[in-house]
Amino acid sequence: MSKPTRQLVYEGKAIDVSIERWGDRAAEVVEHPGAVAVVAVDTERAITLVRQQRIPAGGPLLELPAGTLEHGEEPLAAARRELAEETGLSGGRWRTGPAVYTTPGFCRELMHLFLAEDLQRGDANPQDDEEFELVRWPVGEIAAHLGEIEDAKTLLGLLLFLGEHDGPAAFR
Amino acid sequence: MSKPTRQLVYEGKAIDVSIERWGDRAAEVVEHPGAVAVVAVDTERAITLVRQQRIPAGGPLLELPAGTLEHGEEPLAAARRELAEETGLSGGRWRTGPAVYTTPGFCRELMHLFLAEDLQRGDANPQDDEEFELVRWPVGEIAAHLGEIEDAKTLLGLLLFLGEHDGPAAFR
Repeated sequence: MSKPTRQLVYEGKAIDVSIERWGDRAAEVVEHPGAVAVVAVDTERAITLVRQQRIPAGGPLLELPAGTLEHGEEPLAAARRELAEETGLSGGRWRTGPAVYTTPGFCRELMHLFLAEDLQRGDANPQDDEEFELVRWPVGEIAAHLGEIEDAKTLLGLLLFLGEHDGPAAFR
Repeated sequence: MSKPTRQLVYEGKAIDVSIERWGDRAAEVVEHPGAVAVVAVDTERAITLVRQQRIPAGGPLLELPAGTLEHGEEPLAAARRELAEETGLSGGRWRTGPAVYTTPGFCRELMHLFLAEDLQRGDANPQDDEEFELVRWPVGEIAAHLGEIEDAKTLLGLLLFLGEHDGPAAFR
């Protein structure tokens, strides 16, 4: 495979698009620095999710706390930062789950999943443009709520968490 | 919530970007018609996956057979069409799984998951720009292969399929 070349063709506020060429093949690619999402379980064995308006989805979605990597940031550091900002949860024992491409046909985003347990509750500190409603479920009730989930990373993270108890460990 | 307005700001070959405004809120959105992915199990109880070069991911990925909705196409029809094109599999008993937003922060894509069983094998008919390697695993070996999966929809679909046997039905 020859070395790829990239040409920026759209530079937006949140989204950049490049044409990437590999020899005689080319693709339009939405640039992305990578992302993190956290299955966040506190000392009371409740999971915290965030409900927020998602313009691309046409309404509110219930999601794992998640966010985008800042320049040069390690995924675990980003996950701890985003979790604290969005939910006020901190501390705890952290384990690393799979990293998966969310939409590899057209976007470079790699999503790193984490499991954090024994988290301590505190005050959230959302950024100005973020409005969250926090939703807490006892972990024993997650399975009954799966049908409410319309976000891919969230359904994936919850299934990986539920599978910890009867399958090979997904979080190390 | 006021009625949204959309302004197209980038029109590419495969990707369009709009600015969507809801009252005083605005977001850049990658337009997408929606997508389908299939957990495809044949009459020999083997699952078929496709391995293909994914320029945004920097190399080959192993994925569920999947594709994009054509204009006005129903998700189930798209799933049957894509599965036949990519793998040659047809017929079978089809069940509908969850529909999830893949990246609701910046893209409109809604992914419809299906489970097809008792599929008949035939000849694939890939489009000119698609090069696939087909990979077949007996369904009993899927759990041991999960660590090889780097694609979100694929890991999600496989976990939903494995969970059919010990949890509430994900595919109806």
